[in-house]
Amino acid sequence: MLEYLMKIICDPKRINTSVAIRQQHSQDFTSYHEQHLPDVVLYPKNKEELRKIVAYANRIGCPIVPFGLGTSVEGQVVPIQGGISLNFTHMNRILEIREDDFAVRVEPGVTRIQLNQELKKYGLFFPVDPGVDATLGGMVATNASGCSAVRYGMMREQILGMEAILADGSFIHTGSLAKKSSAGYNLTHLLAGSEGTLAVFTELTLQVYGTPEEFLYAKVVFPDLKKACNAANRMLYRSIQPSKIELVDEYTIQAINSYKLTKYVAKPTLFLELSGWKSTVLAEWEQVKEIIQEEGAGEWSHTFDKAFGDQLWDARRHAALAIAASAPGKKLMTTDVCVPLSILPEAVIFTREVMQAEDLHGAILGHIGDGNYHAVFPIDMSLPEEVAKAEKVNELIVRFALERGGSCTGEHGVGLGKRKYLTEEHGDAVLWMKKIKEIFDPKSILNPGKIF
Amino acid sequence: MLEYLMKIICDPKRINTSVAIRQQHSQDFTSYHEQHLPDVVLYPKNKEELRKIVAYANRIGCPIVPFGLGTSVEGQVVPIQGGISLNFTHMNRILEIREDDFAVRVEPGVTRIQLNQELKKYGLFFPVDPGVDATLGGMVATNASGCSAVRYGMMREQILGMEAILADGSFIHTGSLAKKSSAGYNLTHLLAGSEGTLAVFTELTLQVYGTPEEFLYAKVVFPDLKKACNAANRMLYRSIQPSKIELVDEYTIQAINSYKLTKYVAKPTLFLELSGWKSTVLAEWEQVKEIIQEEGAGEWSHTFDKAFGDQLWDARRHAALAIAASAPGKKLMTTDVCVPLSILPEAVIFTREVMQAEDLHGAILGHIGDGNYHAVFPIDMSLPEEVAKAEKVNELIVRFALERGGSCTGEHGVGLGKRKYLTEEHGDAVLWMKKIKEIFDPKSILNPGKIF
Ligand SMILES: Cc1cc2nc3c(=O)[nH]c(=O)nc-3n(C[C@H](O)[C@H](O)[C@H](O)COP(=O)(O)OP(=O)(O)OC[C@H]3O[C@@H](n4cnc5c(N)ncnc54)[C@H](O)[C@@H]3O)c2cc1C
Ligand SMILES: Cc1cc2nc3c(=O)[nH]c(=O)nc-3n(C[C@H](O)[C@H](O)[C@H](O)COP(=O)(O)OP(=O)(O)OC[C@H]3O[C@@H](n4cnc5c(N)ncnc54)[C@H](O)[C@@H]3O)c2cc1C
Repeated sequence: MLEYLMKIICDPKRINTSVAIRQQHSQDFTSYHEQHLPDVVLYPKNKEELRKIVAYANRIGCPIVPFGLGTSVEGQVVPIQGGISLNFTHMNRILEIREDDFAVRVEPGVTRIQLNQELKKYGLFFPVDPGVDATLGGMVATNASGCSAVRYGMMREQILGMEAILADGSFIHTGSLAKKSSAGYNLTHLLAGSEGTLAVFTELTLQVYGTPEEFLYAKVVFPDLKKACNAANRMLYRSIQPSKIELVDEYTIQAINSYKLTKYVAKPTLFLELSGWKSTVLAEWEQVKEIIQEEGAGEWSHTFDKAFGDQLWDARRHAALAIAASAPGKKLMTTDVCVPLSILPEAVIFTREVMQAEDLHGAILGHIGDGNYHAVFPIDMSLPEEVAKAEKVNELIVRFALERGGSCTGEHGVGLGKRKYLTEEHGDAVLWMKKIKEIFDPKSILNPGKIF
Repeated sequence: MLEYLMKIICDPKRINTSVAIRQQHSQDFTSYHEQHLPDVVLYPKNKEELRKIVAYANRIGCPIVPFGLGTSVEGQVVPIQGGISLNFTHMNRILEIREDDFAVRVEPGVTRIQLNQELKKYGLFFPVDPGVDATLGGMVATNASGCSAVRYGMMREQILGMEAILADGSFIHTGSLAKKSSAGYNLTHLLAGSEGTLAVFTELTLQVYGTPEEFLYAKVVFPDLKKACNAANRMLYRSIQPSKIELVDEYTIQAINSYKLTKYVAKPTLFLELSGWKSTVLAEWEQVKEIIQEEGAGEWSHTFDKAFGDQLWDARRHAALAIAASAPGKKLMTTDVCVPLSILPEAVIFTREVMQAEDLHGAILGHIGDGNYHAVFPIDMSLPEEVAKAEKVNELIVRFALERGGSCTGEHGVGLGKRKYLTEEHGDAVLWMKKIKEIFDPKSILNPGKIF
């Protein structure tokens, strides 16, 4: 196999079988999932190499696992059946910035930070921000979202079209540069969120946006979780469109304070961002102020000061890392349910209760404007009873969401961790997902063992 | 067959074989496509009847064509192979309004006007508005959009989940009540836009929105098409978010004036709506004013007056009918390309030029904020050379769009009329669409002959 791959890649530096590198590609970087080494890590440089690799792997029935930055948290990049880990580091060119079309074409290894650095020159930006840096290929594959989804939507809403390689080694082009289309079945949205199991992306066409003039940042402290949730829901009800609205509970604030040396009051807090023209933002803030006062907000700061905003969002972005740091040596389990908006307050309170009942320490934080929240618990993988406890709590949280019409994963995807809930959530629809998998990848070489 | 169907439906009033009724279900109501009678029109009352009908039709290999209000314009409802036309009139119950979740559950025969009448009581509304009234089932099936898509998106963006019957007579449930999900392949977005060829919808879960406090309506007259297009693009570039922004050319204005007895100046015009809090709307209007002045707008009116707004949107909604009325006895051909935003001005000008070159009278109007516009020409179906001319112009317009990364249909769907462009737009991806069709509907009983 190696010999043949060498002929395709023609560059020994881009074929790696060292244990250290294979180790790096055997797991995602904080999560608690089982590890498994790939047989080899390849770093293709262009789509022709990629096509040959996929065609060859399909011929010999060798698993292929695309690898972006490995920040997914449900074990998506773990090569549980060995084979090839495909690293996109060398496919990170921004191919075209069509500023007047609000669109870009990129290779899948481009990261969101890299893209935003370039877009800045044009007064544009790409909104989806899962906290950590991540490749756009990985983000499309997991249908990632994060803090800005409340205003701009998930990755699926950003992707206009793509080029991808199918298991048989053929290229497929989906979508176009048009913002809207009703031309046939939507394959773009089928491949987005497929976690490397249906196709290997080689090029993505994404929407981008004009950077708003002004940003107003606010941190609003509430006496309890329920009031914080209510305030958020009421803003949406009044058609206020925050560009970010995040719930951070008291435990998360404590972890942030020790990690970032901030002095935030350790109570349930909303981190908020309004953006647009200064006058429109101020008008929105007046509405927000009325609501948070009515919901008994104890104290709040609001400002146009970028330094304050940077600190605030930095703190939010690093929340999971802060929690990890609070428990050195432990791995992180992160729940990711998304519930109907009205259920969010009780879901969050239920979550805190089951964590307390099981004496499981962890934090709750979430994209409250979408009903999507995370409970994050550091667990000691060497203590089976701690692992079992965490899995039980995760299961209770998922079941609570599913029984109320929610989803087991709002943004992290299924990977290994959520496979057991897929049929519970979708019933027989899963059979049809499997049939689609079978026609696209009959030998199951593309990220086998994931999702199903 | 009739005997067996009678046993399923048990109500002779809901099984119709009269020529008049079959005629009504043989065509869409203004369009130029070939007609074909169904053998029978059924009016199922609930999903159990529907399931039995589909299972039976699949057994005997009888075509089934779902029929909403028949307002689609690409021949989608024409039963070109005969069989059963499935009319959803009796499946028009609003099943649940979950006001605090901004979601509703409806049967597919509910129309958008019916839904909005009910939602009004809750201070909510459903944004997608294709001008005419239409069923939500039909709108999901064509991935309809219309004037509000620039702010709220297409039908695909509104649909959270659905229940549908597959060709084999089994039910499938997709999506959930959660606003976001990354749980497996997105079957909801695959079925949305499938034009009755993959499944028969029995229940839809849709997003709804809080009604904005204030609406500012404006009509802005420009010296030429290019300036009108530029002004619209610049608004988007400045992150202004109109809730509607429509381009209406001088020919359309003339048709409207004679149909509606309005006295609008017959020049390229933007119909605009800003909505939200009064203060934010006024702030946005200040920005808009600056732009339209810079682009040389000759005159404009803007107002919070609902009567003015109603007249304006009524005029826009009835534009196609006004054009039809200007040429009695003729049928309408409507183009529907969607181009990258920056291309829109030249696409519109090109369109006017080819229409003039071919001496084809018609109007241009469009959802300019999305790059989606229509040229509408009344044609005399008894004159082969007129039909040929119209088809040639349609083809030139489509090709212009496709060569520049656009789509042959922004919102009307493929039906019969756009089949010939599908491979031109999507290449080999069409093969994979067909494979999906084959697994979902191996006997091709669901709206056969459409899309492909
Ligand atoms: C601290 C922390 C916070 C996070 N917060 C969020 C959050 O707020 N929101 C959120 O959505 N996610 C969040 N995540 C998860 C993660 O960042 C996302 O899942 C991200 O999309 C993964 O991108 P990646 O480049 O690291 O992809 P990887 O983890 O490398 O891969 C993810 C999946 O994409 C597939 N893939 C990668 N490239 C391709 C390609 N070219 N073609 C086909 N398939 C491909 C892989 O096979 C895999 O299945 C967080 C993660 C961490 C560690
Ligand atoms: C004057 C005029 C203006 C228009 N303007 C616009 C516009 O601005 N934007 C726009 O998007 N469209 C527009 N349209 C087109 C039309 O209104 C839309 O296509 C609409 O979605 C059709 O809805 P309907 O209920 O009439 O569906 P129908 O025409 O009855 O059916 C449309 C398709 O949906 C399928 N279908 C219907 N019900 C179901 C079901 N329950 N399950 C599965 N499949 C089903 C049918 O088989 C068919 O393929 C316009 C039409 C006219 C006549």
